[in-house]
This record gives sequence, structure tokens and C-alpha cells, in this order.
Amino acid sequence: VRAAATPGDPLAALRAEAATICDLRGVVALLVWDQQTAMPSGATVARAKQRAAIERAIQERLASPELGRLLEEVRQLDDDGDAAALVRVLDRERRSAVRVSVELRGELVEAAALAQSAWVEARERSSFAHFRPFLERNVELRRSYADCFPELEDPYDAQLDEFDPGARSREVAPVLEELKRSLVPIVRDLRSGEVPPPGGDGPFPVDRQRELTRSLLERMGLDSSRARVVESPHPMTVAMGRHDVGVTTRYSSESLEGVFLALHELGHALYEQRFGAELDRSPLAQGAAASMHEAQARLLEKRLGQSSAFLRFLFPQLRAAFPDALGKAELEDFSASLNSVRRSPIRLKADELTYNLHIVIRFELERDLLAGTLAAGDLPDAWADLYDRYLGVEVSDDAGGVLQDVQWAFGAFGYFPTYALGNVIAAQLWDAIELAVPTLADEIAEGDLGSLLGWLTEHVWRHGRRYPSGVLLERAVGSGIDAGPYIAYLERKFTHERALAVH
Amino acid sequence: VRAAATPGDPLAALRAEAATICDLRGVVALLVWDQQTAMPSGATVARAKQRAAIERAIQERLASPELGRLLEEVRQLDDDGDAAALVRVLDRERRSAVRVSVELRGELVEAAALAQSAWVEARERSSFAHFRPFLERNVELRRSYADCFPELEDPYDAQLDEFDPGARSREVAPVLEELKRSLVPIVRDLRSGEVPPPGGDGPFPVDRQRELTRSLLERMGLDSSRARVVESPHPMTVAMGRHDVGVTTRYSSESLEGVFLALHELGHALYEQRFGAELDRSPLAQGAAASMHEAQARLLEKRLGQSSAFLRFLFPQLRAAFPDALGKAELEDFSASLNSVRRSPIRLKADELTYNLHIVIRFELERDLLAGTLAAGDLPDAWADLYDRYLGVEVSDDAGGVLQDVQWAFGAFGYFPTYALGNVIAAQLWDAIELAVPTLADEIAEGDLGSLLGWLTEHVWRHGRRYPSGVLLERAVGSGIDAGPYIAYLERKFTHERALAVH
Repeated sequence: VRAAATPGDPLAALRAEAATICDLRGVVALLVWDQQTAMPSGATVARAKQRAAIERAIQERLASPELGRLLEEVRQLDDDGDAAALVRVLDRERRSAVRVSVELRGELVEAAALAQSAWVEARERSSFAHFRPFLERNVELRRSYADCFPELEDPYDAQLDEFDPGARSREVAPVLEELKRSLVPIVRDLRSGEVPPPGGDGPFPVDRQRELTRSLLERMGLDSSRARVVESPHPMTVAMGRHDVGVTTRYSSESLEGVFLALHELGHALYEQRFGAELDRSPLAQGAAASMHEAQARLLEKRLGQSSAFLRFLFPQLRAAFPDALGKAELEDFSASLNSVRRSPIRLKADELTYNLHIVIRFELERDLLAGTLAAGDLPDAWADLYDRYLGVEVSDDAGGVLQDVQWAFGAFGYFPTYALGNVIAAQLWDAIELAVPTLADEIAEGDLGSLLGWLTEHVWRHGRRYPSGVLLERAVGSGIDAGPYIAYLERKFTHERALAVH
Repeated sequence: VRAAATPGDPLAALRAEAATICDLRGVVALLVWDQQTAMPSGATVARAKQRAAIERAIQERLASPELGRLLEEVRQLDDDGDAAALVRVLDRERRSAVRVSVELRGELVEAAALAQSAWVEARERSSFAHFRPFLERNVELRRSYADCFPELEDPYDAQLDEFDPGARSREVAPVLEELKRSLVPIVRDLRSGEVPPPGGDGPFPVDRQRELTRSLLERMGLDSSRARVVESPHPMTVAMGRHDVGVTTRYSSESLEGVFLALHELGHALYEQRFGAELDRSPLAQGAAASMHEAQARLLEKRLGQSSAFLRFLFPQLRAAFPDALGKAELEDFSASLNSVRRSPIRLKADELTYNLHIVIRFELERDLLAGTLAAGDLPDAWADLYDRYLGVEVSDDAGGVLQDVQWAFGAFGYFPTYALGNVIAAQLWDAIELAVPTLADEIAEGDLGSLLGWLTEHVWRHGRRYPSGVLLERAVGSGIDAGPYIAYLERKFTHERALAVH
């Protein structure tokens, strides 16, 4: 470890070592990004080896005794805030590297790879039975993972903590419970009808969507000298660093979905691009938590992107770009269609309102799986039961039910709740912005996002992981996580606008 | 070092360590490839840090005492051929890692970066004086680099060896001398005239060129499940590994240059794709030498690509794809134009014949620079003198003379000769193939490259770096490097076809 070369300045040595770890993580990000967007199919196995080599190097550095010694020395310096934050973040990462053995890490990766292949086949055959043993193996290994953190009371907490540092079931569960309690009655009362998609079936020529989306992202704050925008089947954002943020979306000439998916990714991308320059090559240059990251994406995609103010800005551009599809369309109809709600058994087809209940169902089931109170074999029945009770929809088969998501095949438990928590946080942030910027709606309608992005940069984005996510939120909006503002927004929108939404 | 985990089997341990080094090199290749083809401009500094982190990890592994011990143990095993080859190749790489200090490496990288910026500005201003101090610094550092290898008699040998392992001035110089002696008179006798480019000025719509090139590369043996073909200003081939070979070319609607540039890169790419599977994740999965690599590229681009047999296959496809430009063109005129020769002061505009003299000039000058017998300040005069004597052309200014190439700004001395050596080797290989495959021309005219590629795979490509380049050549063609076949080919072509070429 190079750090040993400057024994007189442990903070400088710690920062240098942390910088190398960050450089290596940027490389991992490129390996992942490239695999998803450009790598030839034949390179899958070779790429896995390359990625494993870098990830092993990162783990070895995190687990090294020298890093432990440096962290101890810097802790005793009682230095400025960022030094303390660096110690906090590295301590957590080091704990994971030290406690989770190389063997268990290997087993987790291998089981997840096998489960993903099995999941693809199981979904094609709509046979949960085929996937079940792989799911059981993933659950078993994630319980072994939780055993590495005996100080956590609930095996689910170790999973949550991976995505939202410091998040605990006892704090997350009440938020989701409140969402459920408030939203189930609204959803139950919905008069659900078939609403045509925004702009009908097009046509929306893909080259024009591509051009419009790129200029829209730039207009909305994406620095294109530090970003790349391409297409991939699964929209995503991958940051190789603050200076190199990759964004994807997908286009179909039959829908404008890709434009709005790009707004979601824009939220992720702006967060990554706007970490403070002083955090470069530091582990503080990360989103505070997966839920805080998702909040930025949902805020841009839904709260901003589907708002009537923003559509006053966007819709004329869409109509000009797609005269065949939208030449005679009206803003009100377009907005109503975009904001319509509909009960569906499929999460990825869900609207702003019902989406949260899809997440609640997954949260409750995966928590029980991890706790051992739900056997994998009972999952399809439990799934169907909750879809009936919370959403009032019938699950027709495994493919359209318990096999619809890949997350559990990845071994990613504890990730689903961050989607709903992101919605909740986005609403808290939005209310704070509206309070701080009384002219917000007018500015947005003019396509001027300066105040909005400025507020988010100042209060959230530039801080990266400097503060624990809850502290960051408290500093930004004056309170901890609170489902109230989000529920109030949904109630306002889907009682006032419901008639419009399903006309 | 993981190797220590299997003390009982030093060969297995050595192979495991070598595999990790190869994985890391594949990652460096991706960092380079991505930077050249997709990275946003703002990421340059961050990418340099990422690349440095991986290259440092490679150097540390190569220089580690454990690797030295393993190499010693395997050497004493007296094992099979590939084990001995692995020791030979790793020994050389380790020697460089051990002998060249981290400080000198850093200085080389930094000086080259500064020189490249200075070169860009100097070329714009056509002012060698501006570039001179940076060139002097590069030369000085490359002499310091040579000092790390005191067993080499000539400071130029350390440069050569970096690209062609084992190559020495005393063997390379006579080959280039013979080329010069034979070609200068031919070039002097040329009646040079202006020949229109193949197919005139087009138009050659870029999308059709792209489509044709991609299908041509596949038809000519590129496995597209293990390759990616994109565009970049400077055509190149970068191998992330045998399963992931990146190829670029560039297109202009005014010329077909991009198609033939792609054939050059195809030669590089096929070599990389066809290393034996048993060499995967081994340092033996490299081209035997830069000159051997270049030979494959020149063989595909020139010896095959511009041959009348191949043009009988390709020209009808070109005519069908570009009816506006080639609808009325004749194969003979197209071929004559493609194979025409012309004296020019610019290497990148040179034809098959004169190109070699451009290389001879650079070789002689850079060898004298390294020896200290030519001062950097005297370079422009020496350059003009040799262009006059060897090519009979006048150098008008620095930009079109001594500043035309970036290689010396990169600090890459000893690389130029590999271009001419590649031509020489390509001719030796071609003669051997013609001898082994009497029906070669007919097969090529049918677009059947099976025999050609099969021979190259069997005798050259699959072996990677298993044999020293000279041994590989000896095994393939029955003799060491020999300019004779190449000179005979050029004499045949440019005395017989000259009238055609400049009509």
C-alpha cells in the first residue's frame, strides 16, 4: 500500500489510498457499462475474469491492515468534517471487506449467475418450480451474508444496508406500511379503464426521438462533455466518475416511453455529475443511498416530467417533432394519458400511484423469505394473495407474477424498498423546493430549470456521501423520512384528477 | 500474490499469476479503446488516473519477488514447451518492470504527454523550433531508458526490443539498407503522374460503406461474436482479449479509403482472434512482435486487398453498392488507380512502393538521434536531405516534413522500422502460402479465403508469442527475415505494371 510512504501525514495517506480505490471502482463501472452497451457476446466469461481481478484488488485494499491503521490514526486526529465523513464511509466499506470472506463472496456471485440463467428459462416456461431451488440457494447465501453482521438484529437489515447505508427494517417498514394503508383504499376506489397511451401509437420516428432526447437532456442540465448517451434494452445510468457518466434509454417508434425513461436516468446522471469537485476521487463521491439516488430519478421523471408545468414546455416540442402522431393532439389529453392510472399485475407497467403497492408486496415477501417465515415454495401463493388484497388484480401465471422481476435472481434483496422510499423522499424534496422557489411552476413552464437544479445541487447533489442519507435529508427539508408529503400529493392528484385520468 | 497459495505446484501458481496479469492488461486495453472511441472529452484526466492505477498494479505484480521465485522454480522444472515459453516471455516483462524505476516511468509518461501537446501546436504553426525542446527531452529520457539495459550494445536496441522482442539494430539495419538500395533506383525511374483516386470522387454514401465493410470483414473471417467494429478518426485495432477485439475505420463519402483501411485492421484483428484457445489468459496470447503483427495487416490490406485476384471478387460488390460512382467503371482502371505510385513528402499518402523509403528515412534519423550523432536541432535539414536523396521530393515546411508524424512526440522510437519489416515478412509469408496453395489466386477471386486464413492460422496466428518472432518465421517459411521476396515482388509489380499504374 502506497499509503505507508507518508507516515507523517495519515490523512494525506488515507486520501491517496481512497483515491486509488475510487479509480479502481471507476474501472469496474466501465467494465459493467461496456458489457451492457457494447461488448461482443462472446466475451462474457473473459469479462467476468477481468472484473473479478479488479474487484479482488479493491477488496484486498479495503481489508488491508494498513488501511485499518490509517483509519485509526485519522480517527484520532479529530479533523474537519470531510475527514470524519471519509472515515465513516471507509469504515463501513472496510467492515464488509473484512467480514465477508472471499469464499462467501465467490459463492454469492456464482449462485447469482446460475440463478439468472435459471430465471430466464423459468420465465420462458412460466415455471416457478424450475427457479425455486436457485432462489432458495440465493436466500440461504444472503442469510449467510447477514450472519457476517451479527450486530444487526434482523437478517434483512444486512441486505438493506448494502444499498441504503444505515437503513434498518424497523425504520423502513413503518414508511411502507403507511404507504400501503393510505394507497390501498385509493386504488380500490379507482374506476379503471383503458386509456390510450400518450399520442396514441405514433408513429414516433426513432431518429427524431433520439435527437429530441439528447437536446432535452442538455437543456435540462446534463453536461455533455462529461456524459455519453446511448441505447440499451434496459435503461440505466453508470458513472465511471463525475467526468464520465453513461446514460441509456431505449426507443420504439410506437411510443414516447424512451423520452420519459431518459428523464428518469437524467435524475441519476445529474446527481453523479454534480458531486462537489472537492470530492473527486473520494468515496464521498457517491450517492448518499440508493433511495436518495432513486429520489432524484423519480423527481425528474415523475414529479417534474409529468407535471402540467413541464408539459407546457415539453408538449409543443413533441408536437413539432412528431406531427403525424401529435399534430392534432391537445396538451390536456396528452397529460391525462401520461398521468392515467390502471391496476396491472406487472410492476413495469404500473403508474405513479399503483407502483408503490407493487414495491410493498415485494418488500413484505422478501423480508419474510430472509426471516425464514416464508418458504420459497409458498411464494407464488403468497404473491397472488397480496396482489389480490392490495391491488385487486389477479395473477394469471408465474411469468406474469412472481417471475416478472430479475432482482431476486441477482440475489438483490433489500433493493426493492429503495424504489418506494425514493418516491417518498422525492416528494419531501419537491415540497421544500416549492417553498423555497415560489415561482417554480412558471419557471418550469418556460423550460427554465435553474432554480430547481440549483436547489438540488446545493442541498443534495454536491454533498455526495458526506452525510448519512437521513442527515442529508434532515438538512435539506428539515425532517427525517416521512411518507406524509408523498401521500398528500397522491391523494390530491388521484382524487382531483382521477376523472380526467380515466376519461 | 495469490500464487503463494499453491506452493506445491509452481507452474500452476505461475499460470494463475500470469492469468491475473493478462486480465489486468485486458482492462487497460478497454480503458484505451473506450477513450479513443466513446469517452466524453471531460474525462481525460480522470481516465489517466484510472489507467495509471491498473498499470501500477501490473508493474507491481511483474516486479514482485514472489513472481521471481516462481519463475526460478518453473525454470528448474524443465517442463514442456509452453511452460518454457511462458518463462521466456514473463522474464522479459519482469526485467523491464524491475529495471525501469517507477520514477523514470512517470517521467516518460509525463514528457510524452507534454510533447504531444507541443507537437499539436508546433504542427499548426509549422514550427519545429517549438517542438524541439520536447523532442530533446523525449530522446534524453529514452536514452535513460536504454541505460536500464546495459547488456544491449546500442541505445536504439532497447527501443526496438520494446516492440519487437529480441530485435537488434545490427540485424534490422541490413534489411532496411537492402530495401533502400533496391528501391531508390526504382523510385527514381518512376514517371510520376496524377492518377485519379479509385472510383474518382464518389459519391460513396457512408451508410453503404459501413454496411459493405461489416459484411466484408465477416466474410473475410472476422468472428463478429468476438469483435466490435466502430468508427474513429484514426483506424486502429485494440484487443481486450481473444474474445473481444475492437476494430475501427473511418469513412468519407468522397473516397473508399475506409474500406481498405478496414482490411488493414482486419489483419491485426484476425491475428488477435486466432491465438490458440490454450493460450487464453496467458502472456503468450500476444502477437510475436510488432513487425509480425504489422505483417498480417499489410498482407491483408496490400498483398491480398489490392491484388487483381481479390479485386475480381470485391470490385463487382463495390460497383453494385456505389452505382453512381462506379456504374461505368472498369476493374482494370480501378485496380490501376488503387495500385498507382507517386512520390510524396507525406508518409500517410504514400503508396505500397515509396512507403518503405519513408520508413527508412525515419529509422536512420531516429537511430542517430538516440546514438547522439544527430542533434535534434539538425533534424529538419537532415530530414530534407534524405527526402531529396531517397525519394527525390522536396520538403516544403516543417508541418509537411519532420512534424508530420506523432510517434516521436509519443516517445515511440524504434516503432517505425516495424512497418517496413512487416512488409518484408508479409512477402515471405505470401510466397510460402502460394507455394503451399497452388490454387490460391482462383480461390481468392471466388471470395474463398479458407486456404489463406487457414495457413496463417496454422503457421502464425495460433502460436501467439510461443516462439520468438524470428523462430516463428523460420518455422513458417523456412528462413529468417529476408528482404528478397518483398523486393522481387515490388520489382515485378512496378516494372511490369508501371505503365498501367501511371497512365
